[in-house]
Order: sequence, then structure tokens, then C-alpha cells
Amino acid sequence: MYEITSNKKKIGIFDSGIGGLSVVKQIIKYLPEYDLVYFGDTARVPYGNKSNETIKKYALEDTEFLCKNNSEIIVIACNTASSIAYEIIKEKFPKNLIIDIILPGVERALEMSNNKKIGVIATKATINSKSHEKFLKKIDKKVEVFNRDCSLLVTLAESNSLSERLVGEILQEYIEPLVLNGIDTLILGCTHYPYFKNKIKNIFPDLKLVDPGEVLAIDLKKILMENKELNKKLKKDSFYEYFVSDEPQNFEQTCKKFLNIKNANIKKIDFNKR
Amino acid sequence: MYEITSNKKKIGIFDSGIGGLSVVKQIIKYLPEYDLVYFGDTARVPYGNKSNETIKKYALEDTEFLCKNNSEIIVIACNTASSIAYEIIKEKFPKNLIIDIILPGVERALEMSNNKKIGVIATKATINSKSHEKFLKKIDKKVEVFNRDCSLLVTLAESNSLSERLVGEILQEYIEPLVLNGIDTLILGCTHYPYFKNKIKNIFPDLKLVDPGEVLAIDLKKILMENKELNKKLKKDSFYEYFVSDEPQNFEQTCKKFLNIKNANIKKIDFNKR
Repeated sequence: MYEITSNKKKIGIFDSGIGGLSVVKQIIKYLPEYDLVYFGDTARVPYGNKSNETIKKYALEDTEFLCKNNSEIIVIACNTASSIAYEIIKEKFPKNLIIDIILPGVERALEMSNNKKIGVIATKATINSKSHEKFLKKIDKKVEVFNRDCSLLVTLAESNSLSERLVGEILQEYIEPLVLNGIDTLILGCTHYPYFKNKIKNIFPDLKLVDPGEVLAIDLKKILMENKELNKKLKKDSFYEYFVSDEPQNFEQTCKKFLNIKNANIKKIDFNKR
Repeated sequence: MYEITSNKKKIGIFDSGIGGLSVVKQIIKYLPEYDLVYFGDTARVPYGNKSNETIKKYALEDTEFLCKNNSEIIVIACNTASSIAYEIIKEKFPKNLIIDIILPGVERALEMSNNKKIGVIATKATINSKSHEKFLKKIDKKVEVFNRDCSLLVTLAESNSLSERLVGEILQEYIEPLVLNGIDTLILGCTHYPYFKNKIKNIFPDLKLVDPGEVLAIDLKKILMENKELNKKLKKDSFYEYFVSDEPQNFEQTCKKFLNIKNANIKKIDFNKR
């Protein structure tokens, strides 16, 4: 039952748009009982082609919205926002536990890779930030990192407008140079990319793929198992709320398609008035 | 010489981002002496995947900014904004001449087409608005219109990240169904698409292509030649100013690439404070 009078807190998740639903899917899989509140900034999507200053501004607004909506934990589901705005969010919201999506993927990639040659595909802003590379080399100096900006894949996942064959060719053209450099592990460094996971597996069957959203959910479960105090603070009524800044109908369709959720609890907010 | 004390007015042009530079290019070609002020809303680009309500809000803000910057004429270079927000801009800014980019392309297409089967490629929002179709059928009831949402092409033009061969295949997959329906004329219904004009010509050599930005510039010249009063109001010092809401450096590169302009006069504004 949903306790109206509870002062217990939620897990808040934000993304630039619909992509973060791939992270929500994993969190629901590993932590089904916890209450979630999601914010997708669909009025300003994508973040990956914006400046660092603008990305920080948007990400702080997103975090503030989630905090006002009773979030104890803030999950930055967006790789771009994690790369650019994690430090400033931690600084401005010191009372919340802030979880970014870069570190979990990096740690898992290092566990999985045998030859320590790791590929990263992500948006332009994420690649330019070199976040994955910095974290990877901080943990293991010897690792070799091969990056590729695949900004087109976000629109491709959302529009779903080309033939399967052509989508395969686009993926091949983006990823092949990394494979020719000898990578054995590839980080899917944008929340939209897990959408292409099976297709990439078909084209490059020997490549190990890291879905950072799944690793994040497993890590979050571990944190909550180990931190009894934090765990006690959280509501566990399996109540999921979704807020977007634009296009709630589109979002609803995506909820159906990716999460298999019908009649999701979606509300539109005006980010200029929040 | 630039008259500082002049109260003469400029031609204002806005777009969701850098795409409108293809329209600026045509206006400079046909009306090189007129002063221009451009605004590209790069902090919120693209508009094509946003809701009508949000597009109207953004377009009104863009127009207001141009008016504050001494614009007498407002050119809506963005097809999406023209489709969704032309009427409301005309209503809210009755003293300005508002020129949209849909009608010029539609009129030219009807002149060029022999069989009155016309194709339109554009963003999702523009296609869903059916603006081209409505205008085409208003002028000629018998015309047959074949639409295709090609949202991916905006990111493709901006990212420039795939091989020429694959770009050709994507264009072919998007446009071929329209050609199979018998169109002899194709409206490039998004400011980014003239970037692919030569490629489309190579793939479909018999297809007549309409670049609405060029037609708009020719029409604007005609209006100014015929309307002496309006013409007298305008500054003619070939002074071009560019404002963006984000990423001025990216914009500068595009000015170099598309307009062959070095050291363009580019300023960044904060659209939340303007």
C-alpha cells in the first residue's frame, strides 16, 4: 500500500530525455520494491551537443526538481550529465547520495577485459570530456582506451526510421575502427545505446559489451544492502512516478515499448516554472 | 560605414540552431547590402522533436529577441517553427513583417512540378503539422503530396561522422519510397537538408529539388523592391551579427564551413535572462 503520510524518501533518476528509461528498467529489475521518481528533460533533449556550462545548468535544475520531489538518492542516468556535472551536483547537494553512470561502467569494463584495450562509444560531449578515459586510467594506468563519438545513434534509436540492414551498417562503421584497434570490451556510454545491444552482439560476437545502467543497478543494490541507515530511509511500495518537461505522450509510448509498462504515471512539468 | 546613430532597422532571422545559416547564405547572396541579425537557439536545438506548445514558446522568445535587436522583418528560417508558430508570431508581433519558410518552397514546387506529385522531406514535427500539404492543396487541389520524416538527417549534417557511401544509402532509403510513388519534385523541408543537395541530385538525377531558403531570399528581394516604404526603413551597411544561446565556437566553425565567413561577429546570450 502507498503510505500518503510517510516521510520516507525515494530514489530519484534523471536523464536528458527518454534514454534513462533503460537505467530505470535495470533498477526496477534489481530493486523492484523501492519507490522511484524519474525526470526526463524532453524539452531540452539532447544534452550531448550542448556546452559544458549549459549541461551543468540543466543537470542542477534536474537534480533540484528530484530533491523537491522527495529524492534521497540521485541517480544521474545520463552519461553526458555524469561526465560534465557530477562534481558540481555533489558540491551543491551534499546531503544526497549522488550516483553517476560513468564509474560503474568503467569498473565493470576493467573486470571484463583480458587485454586491457577498452572501447567507449558515447555522445560528442561525453567523448570530449574524456571521463571514461580518466576513470579507466586512474584505476589501471596500463589500459588503452579507444573512443568514438556516435551522436547519430540517439536520434536513430528514437526515430526508428531506417531498415535493420542500414542500422547494422551504421553500427559496423562506428564500431569497426575500435575493433581493428584490438578492443575486447566496449562500454555503451550513452543510455540509448543498450537499445542496439543485440545488434552489436550479432555483428561483433566476440566483443564484450558493458551496459552501465545494469552495473549501476547492481551497485546500488549492494550499497543499499550494506548501508542499513540509508535503506531504512527509503520507501518500498514499488511506486514509480515519471515527470517530463515535454511530449508526455511520446514518453508513454516509450514506457510501453522499453519497460513494458502500460498506464505509467507520467506528468508534464514546465521547467521554467518549477 | 556603420551608422551608430541610425534608427534604421535590420532583417532578423532565427532558427533552432545552425541550420538557418543555409537561409542566411541565400539572403546574403540576393540582398548583400542589408544589415542582418541572426539568432540560433543552440541551447535548445532541435525543435523538430518537441511538442507544438514548446515550439511556439521557443519561437515567440526567439522573435522577441530579434525585435529587441532592432529587427523590422522577421524571417522564420526554421521549417518546424514556421509550421507550428507562424500564426501566433504574426498575431503577437503585428507591426513586423513575418516571413515563413514554408510558403515560398510550396509555391516554387508547384511551379516546377509537371505531374503535380510533390515530395516533402522534413523533421517529425514539420511532417506531423502537414503544413506543406495544407499550403500545396490550398493552391492546387489536385496536387498529390508524399511526406517523409527524415529527422536523422539533422544530426547527420551536423555530426558529419559517417562515410560518403553510407550517407548516400541513408538518403536513398529515405527518398526512394517517394520516388517510387512518382514524385518529380522534392521540397527540402528542413534548413539542414540543402547540405545534402548535391548528393541527392547524384542519386536521383531526374528529381527537381526545391531549396526553400533560396526561394525565400528571392521573394524577399522582390518584396523589398516593390515596397519602397519598408525598404527605406532598413539599414544597408552589410553588417551581419550572429547570436546563439550556446556553443558559439561550434557556430563559428559552421560559419566558416557553410558561409565561408572568417571572424564572424558571434555573441552568446543566455535565453533565460534575455
